[in-house]
Amino acid sequence: MKKMNTSPISGMQELLPETQAIFDRYKNVISEVYHNHGFLSIETPIIDRNEILLAKAGGDTEKQIYKVIKTAESEDDADQALRFDHTVPLARYVVEHENELTFPFKVTQIGRNFRGERAQKGRFREFYQCDVDVIGRGNLPIYYDADVIATLLDAFKGFELGTPVLARINNRKILSGFVEAMGLSELSGKIFGVIDHAEKVSPEATREAFAELGIENAKINQLVKFIGIHGGRASVTQALREFGDLNDTYKKGIAELEKVMLALEMDGRGTDIEADMLIVRGLDYYTGTVFEFVLPEYKQVGSVCGGGRYENLAGFFTEQELPGVGGSIGLTRLFYVLNENNLVKSQESKPIDTAVIPITENEIEFAMRVAKDRRDQGEKVTIVATDKRLGDKLTYAAKLAENGIVVGENEAKSGTYEIKKFN
Amino acid sequence: MKKMNTSPISGMQELLPETQAIFDRYKNVISEVYHNHGFLSIETPIIDRNEILLAKAGGDTEKQIYKVIKTAESEDDADQALRFDHTVPLARYVVEHENELTFPFKVTQIGRNFRGERAQKGRFREFYQCDVDVIGRGNLPIYYDADVIATLLDAFKGFELGTPVLARINNRKILSGFVEAMGLSELSGKIFGVIDHAEKVSPEATREAFAELGIENAKINQLVKFIGIHGGRASVTQALREFGDLNDTYKKGIAELEKVMLALEMDGRGTDIEADMLIVRGLDYYTGTVFEFVLPEYKQVGSVCGGGRYENLAGFFTEQELPGVGGSIGLTRLFYVLNENNLVKSQESKPIDTAVIPITENEIEFAMRVAKDRRDQGEKVTIVATDKRLGDKLTYAAKLAENGIVVGENEAKSGTYEIKKFN
Repeated sequence: MKKMNTSPISGMQELLPETQAIFDRYKNVISEVYHNHGFLSIETPIIDRNEILLAKAGGDTEKQIYKVIKTAESEDDADQALRFDHTVPLARYVVEHENELTFPFKVTQIGRNFRGERAQKGRFREFYQCDVDVIGRGNLPIYYDADVIATLLDAFKGFELGTPVLARINNRKILSGFVEAMGLSELSGKIFGVIDHAEKVSPEATREAFAELGIENAKINQLVKFIGIHGGRASVTQALREFGDLNDTYKKGIAELEKVMLALEMDGRGTDIEADMLIVRGLDYYTGTVFEFVLPEYKQVGSVCGGGRYENLAGFFTEQELPGVGGSIGLTRLFYVLNENNLVKSQESKPIDTAVIPITENEIEFAMRVAKDRRDQGEKVTIVATDKRLGDKLTYAAKLAENGIVVGENEAKSGTYEIKKFN
Repeated sequence: MKKMNTSPISGMQELLPETQAIFDRYKNVISEVYHNHGFLSIETPIIDRNEILLAKAGGDTEKQIYKVIKTAESEDDADQALRFDHTVPLARYVVEHENELTFPFKVTQIGRNFRGERAQKGRFREFYQCDVDVIGRGNLPIYYDADVIATLLDAFKGFELGTPVLARINNRKILSGFVEAMGLSELSGKIFGVIDHAEKVSPEATREAFAELGIENAKINQLVKFIGIHGGRASVTQALREFGDLNDTYKKGIAELEKVMLALEMDGRGTDIEADMLIVRGLDYYTGTVFEFVLPEYKQVGSVCGGGRYENLAGFFTEQELPGVGGSIGLTRLFYVLNENNLVKSQESKPIDTAVIPITENEIEFAMRVAKDRRDQGEKVTIVATDKRLGDKLTYAAKLAENGIVVGENEAKSGTYEIKKFN
C-alpha cells in the first residue's frame, strides 16, 4: 500500500489531546467571561452567499475567501463561500432577525473562520475568533465601548498568563480632527496607514513616509509629536488639549476617549489601560473608539486583541442605523504566539481524574460500579479493560489519569476499593 | 437601497439567542458526559484534502461533498473539500499522530460537518455531530462497545427529555452467520438492505423484497422469523440459539452481543437496552456490534443516535490495524426533531441573572461596582446604560434578566442596593 500523506493541510491547527485540552480551557474561559458580562451566544452558518460575504469586501478579503462548490446534482444555490469573519454574518443576522432581538443587543460569537492566506508560520487558514459586540438601534451610549473593553480584559485575566496585558485605547475622531485641522483631510487615509505602520519601522522611516505624502516639515513635526502622546487619561487629554480646540470632531473625540477611560477607571482598571495616539486599527471600518491589547513584556507578539466602535453595522443590507462596538480575540493565533513564547502553562493535571483497573474480566462488573460511584462525585473516569498484563494497564492508566483504583477478587468481594495517586 | 436577501442559505440552522442557549445546553451536556466517561477532545480541520476525504467514499457522499476553491493567487494546494463526517478526519489524525497517542484511544469530536444535500425539511447541510470513538491498536476488547453505548445513553439521560430512550443493539456477525448458513452469502449486501428498510414498510413488502432477490419461500419464512427477534439478553440469545450452532461467525456474534448486553446490565441498564435483529446500520462499514437509539413514545422520529464496531478505522491510510467502536449524536437534526415534537423544554431561566440599572449616567460608577460584586458571586450580569427613561430600561432588563437592581443617587451614596426579581 502506498502510504498517503496524512498531515493536515498547511495553515490548519491540529493539536494532540493534551494540547487541545489547554486550548479548550482558553476557549471556555472566554465563553464564561463573555456570558458573565451579559453577552448572548449566537451561531451563524459557516457557509453564506457571496453577495452577503462580499457586499463590503474587496482587496485581500476577496482574494482570500474560500468559495464552495456543491457537487450535488441540484445546484439550487450557487455562489457560496466560507465566512472570513463574524462581523458580516452578524450584520446579516441582525437585519434578518431585527424584530425578534432586544436592543442594545449584546452578542458573542465563538467559532472558526476561514481565509485562504498564503501558508506562513503563525498564519492560519482556519482560525477561532471569539467576538463580542453590542449593537444599538439608532444610537448606542459610549458606556458600551468601555463594557466591551472591560469584558475582553477580564477574559485575558482569566487566562492567567503570568505577564501583564495592556489595553491601548484611542478614538479615531481625535486623529481625524487633528488631520483636518492641519488641512490634510484629503490625505487622511494615507496618514492613518503611516501611523498604523509606525511601530514596525524606525522614527526616521515614519517621517520619510509622511514626507513622501508631500507633507511639509512643520506639519510632520506636529504629527510626530501628536502620535507620540500616550499614557493615563489625565495626562493624555491635557497633552491633546494643548494643541487647542481644533474643531468639533477633535473635541468630540477627546470627550469620548475621556468617558471610556473614566468608565474603565471606575471599573477598577488602572495599569492595564492606556490612551495611545498610535492606535488606528485598519482603515475605514471604525469611526470612534479603537483599541488593541498587547503584552508589554512580549512586544514582538504584537496585538493580541482588537476592536472598536462602528457607526453602522449593516449599511449594506438595511437603511436602519445600527451603531455598534465590538472586539475580538483571535484565539488560534493567540494560542500559537503564547506557545511560541512559553506563556502557555501545561495542564497541571492529567485529562482524566480516575482510572479504574480491573485485574481480570471477572472484576469488570465491580469496576463499572466503582466508575459510576466516582463519576457521581463529578470525576472524569475511565475503565482500563484491555487484555494486557496488570503492569501494562497501570502504565496506560498512569499516562492518562491522576489516580488509579485497582480492583481484584478481594475488592469485588468486599465491595471496597482504594484510590492511589499516580506520580 | 435594494433590500438584500438576508436569510441564511436554506438547510442551515440559525437560531435566536434564547433557542441558541437551549441548543448550547444540549451541546454542553454531551461534552460533559463524554469527558466524564474518559473521552479526550480533539478538533480536526474542517477543510481537508479530497484524496483523504474521498479515499473510501463514493455514491451519495461524493455527490454531497462541498469542494472549496481558494481564490488567492498562490494555489499551493488544490483539491480540497469540507469534511462530511468526523470519522474520515479521525482516521487521518490517528495515523498521523499514532506514535504520540495512547491506545486504546478514547476520543471525542464535537463540531460541524457539511453535506450539500437537497434542501428538505429537517435535513441540514451544516450540522453538529457529537462523536465518541475508542480506537485500539491491533485489538480492542468487546467491553469498549458497552462503554460507548453507556456513554451515549448517559448523554441522553442528561438531556432530561421526559420520554424514555431505548438503545437497540445487534451484532452484524449474527446476521452474516445466519445468511451464510442459509447459503445466501452472495446476496448478503442486498438482504442487509432489505432488513435495514423493513421498519419503514409493511411486513408483506419486506417478504416481497426478499422474494425479488430470488429467495425461496421457506428461507423467507426463516429470515422473517429471525428479524422478528428482539428483547432482553436472555430471551434473544435463547431464540437465536434455537436456530442451532449455525457456524462460527453466528456463534461469535451471539457471544459478543451477550457480552455487550451483560456489561450494560452490570452497569445498571435495564429497560433502556434491547437486543434487536432488525438493527443493521448501513451497508459495509460495521463488522460487529451495531446500535441505534430511538424514542419509543415518538417512533416517527426514527433513530436519534447510532454507531457500532469497525474492524479497521484507517485501512485506506495505513497497514496498522486500528479496530474501533464509536457512535454519534447528530445534534442539529436531533434538536430539530425534538423541537418538532415539543420535547425541548424552554429555558426555565432568562439568559442573564442580574441587570443593573443606573437611573442616570451619574450612577454608572456605582452600577459597575454592583455588577462586579454580583459577577464575583458567579452571576451573569449586564448594565443597562441606555439613555432611555427608567421605564424603558426596566422593560429591557425584564426581557433579558431574572433580577433587576435599580441604582440611583441614594444607593450610590449609601453603597447599598436591593435585588428585585422580575416577574
